[in-house]
Amino acid sequence: MRLSWDRILAKRVAAFRPCIRTDFSLLPAPPDTIHFTGGAPPVECLPVEPLAEELARAWRSEPTALWYGETEGYRPLREAIAARLARRGAVVDPDDILITQGAQQAIDLVARLLLEPGDRVLVEGPTYFGALQVFEPYAVRIEAVPLDEEGVQLERLEELLARQPRPKLFYTVPTFQNPAGVTMSLERRRAVVELAERYGVPIVEDDPYGDLWYETLPPPPLRAFSEDVLSLGSFSKTIAPGLRVGWLVAPRQLMKPLIDAKEAADIQSDRLLQRAIAAVITSPWYEEHLTAARRVYATRCRTLADALSRELGDLATWRLPGGGFFLWVTLQGDVDSAALLPHCAAAGVTYVPGSEFYPDHRPTPSFRLGFTTLSIEAMLVGAERLGRALRAALVEASGR
Amino acid sequence: MRLSWDRILAKRVAAFRPCIRTDFSLLPAPPDTIHFTGGAPPVECLPVEPLAEELARAWRSEPTALWYGETEGYRPLREAIAARLARRGAVVDPDDILITQGAQQAIDLVARLLLEPGDRVLVEGPTYFGALQVFEPYAVRIEAVPLDEEGVQLERLEELLARQPRPKLFYTVPTFQNPAGVTMSLERRRAVVELAERYGVPIVEDDPYGDLWYETLPPPPLRAFSEDVLSLGSFSKTIAPGLRVGWLVAPRQLMKPLIDAKEAADIQSDRLLQRAIAAVITSPWYEEHLTAARRVYATRCRTLADALSRELGDLATWRLPGGGFFLWVTLQGDVDSAALLPHCAAAGVTYVPGSEFYPDHRPTPSFRLGFTTLSIEAMLVGAERLGRALRAALVEASGR
Repeated sequence: MRLSWDRILAKRVAAFRPCIRTDFSLLPAPPDTIHFTGGAPPVECLPVEPLAEELARAWRSEPTALWYGETEGYRPLREAIAARLARRGAVVDPDDILITQGAQQAIDLVARLLLEPGDRVLVEGPTYFGALQVFEPYAVRIEAVPLDEEGVQLERLEELLARQPRPKLFYTVPTFQNPAGVTMSLERRRAVVELAERYGVPIVEDDPYGDLWYETLPPPPLRAFSEDVLSLGSFSKTIAPGLRVGWLVAPRQLMKPLIDAKEAADIQSDRLLQRAIAAVITSPWYEEHLTAARRVYATRCRTLADALSRELGDLATWRLPGGGFFLWVTLQGDVDSAALLPHCAAAGVTYVPGSEFYPDHRPTPSFRLGFTTLSIEAMLVGAERLGRALRAALVEASGR
Repeated sequence: MRLSWDRILAKRVAAFRPCIRTDFSLLPAPPDTIHFTGGAPPVECLPVEPLAEELARAWRSEPTALWYGETEGYRPLREAIAARLARRGAVVDPDDILITQGAQQAIDLVARLLLEPGDRVLVEGPTYFGALQVFEPYAVRIEAVPLDEEGVQLERLEELLARQPRPKLFYTVPTFQNPAGVTMSLERRRAVVELAERYGVPIVEDDPYGDLWYETLPPPPLRAFSEDVLSLGSFSKTIAPGLRVGWLVAPRQLMKPLIDAKEAADIQSDRLLQRAIAAVITSPWYEEHLTAARRVYATRCRTLADALSRELGDLATWRLPGGGFFLWVTLQGDVDSAALLPHCAAAGVTYVPGSEFYPDHRPTPSFRLGFTTLSIEAMLVGAERLGRALRAALVEASGR
């Protein structure tokens, strides 16, 4: 007799889902389809050699790192992260940094620490879908605060912060936001931190793109303005997503429960890899690598924006980001980018529809284009396909 | 103004704790103390070279493994794990295996899938403390089923399975149990699976030591007797704990929520390391490595047991395990091994007190000795210190 799993599973399982709801394998996309869906460094920016060398060195020089140890993370790596944050304006004690399996685990640990059924959670609208994926199984009410060109809208944020019960956290990607590309201005950062303190609501700052500016250093992380900000980052975007090494900066009094939670979750992160990354990011190579990567991303971003101006300048609007991986495109009129996606896929081009980035997954005329993993040639062809497919689909829709 | 974190944190945080409650750094132990507390392969059994070589090969041959991909895990590794389980008598489809950050994450994912506040959870008494660490923050009632020389006691298990509400799971380490060293007999395995099916309760089988027998292959994993058994394992004990690569075999219908939960937790495990491990465990080297490791552990186990017979044969009893890492020693009389630990530490020897392995952490005359990380010489000195210190402490206690 088999067990009745439907009866046995916890209620939260009903809220489990992949971070992207759209199943791209079900779309009618031909084999040569150009996917603007990626959110990772391109293969030519993956620093295989220096990392592989440092890793080999770590294995040879410290085999006991193959044992248990350092649930909080390798101290020299935490020191190196603190030094990098200091250059961006946030002074952090290495003792307040926990090493995690990428920023994703940092979000997961924060949720474990804070969320209970019925809690209110504020996010930006749009926001990173992987955070929604973590929050949803906690049976919380997720509310989105809209963005403008300087970041989250203050009046709407205050309105939602002021309501009872107080939100358990405000999750924000203030710098080169995923997906909207917006960067919160310095003045807005100060105001947001001040509002959150006034209403006693923790800020969770997700900052994976802050080192990837194109021309101008972004304002300091929110953590620079308050020690109560939970600030998380990752080497997924600056080195490689396959590394699964990120960090969480937390208020001192939360470090013990966080380390206990990390131990319960997976005991520790890869200790040898942490040693290799510490060596790599403190070497002169890393700044050269970042400088080269920034140039690649700035060029691709500009190229894609220029191509979009030609191909769908009369159909859509977007803002040029100051860094990061994404262009957020908004079609004119009351259309649903998710409904248009199959038409585009059939024409050999895909994007992530905007509805993926809102907690209510409502239809939206926006979509996200990721430009880092595609060659210039692929982007030009992709933009042309996109313009043609969207034009045809919109004409067809308005004719019905 | 700083936030009032005490007011903000979720209630579950009160149940967060390190897996071992005893803080060994607070004990009056001199620098040359011999610690019987380890649960890892010794440094001379860490296969640094073959793994480092295969890892270097993986980095060179497939740099795109540094990207996102394969949340469920590298398929050839899942196939290799399935092939190894088949040799132990459990036929498993690679599609029913999820790669995890060590067995610890497998336990964590199972808890996410099954546990709700107020649920009943059955474990063995004594049991692995890292599982208690995962279960406790779910606000469940954890009940321990005692062991005898053939594994969990059937009458007591049935009594607890039959009660309402039905337990959400029965967690067991059936082979070379941590900490008791007991191996569930073939007949007992069949009966336990049959009982769990009759009462509709999932079995969670934790099997990290099954490949580390001394002379005789243990009976097949419980998963061999039912596809509803959730069976987890790890390369932490056979290769190195620092790898953080384990697996979870689950019923087919649970794989989708498990993959979603893994993605939310940390997106994926290290893809290059998975490739290296797949190469290593399918090479002839691996069986030679296991054969050599088994010999080392069998010798250390026998040596320690012989020394204990000499040093505290009149004070305590234990059973010789058929494999694994641990001797479970029970002192005569109504004594508390936790209370005796500071005396032993002062005499230069430590163990993990038995109270760590019970959900209620009640005083117990038993304690765990791990013998794999210590040299023969250290074990002989350690046993002598242990006998002397316990004898003195017991005399002192009875004299009061």
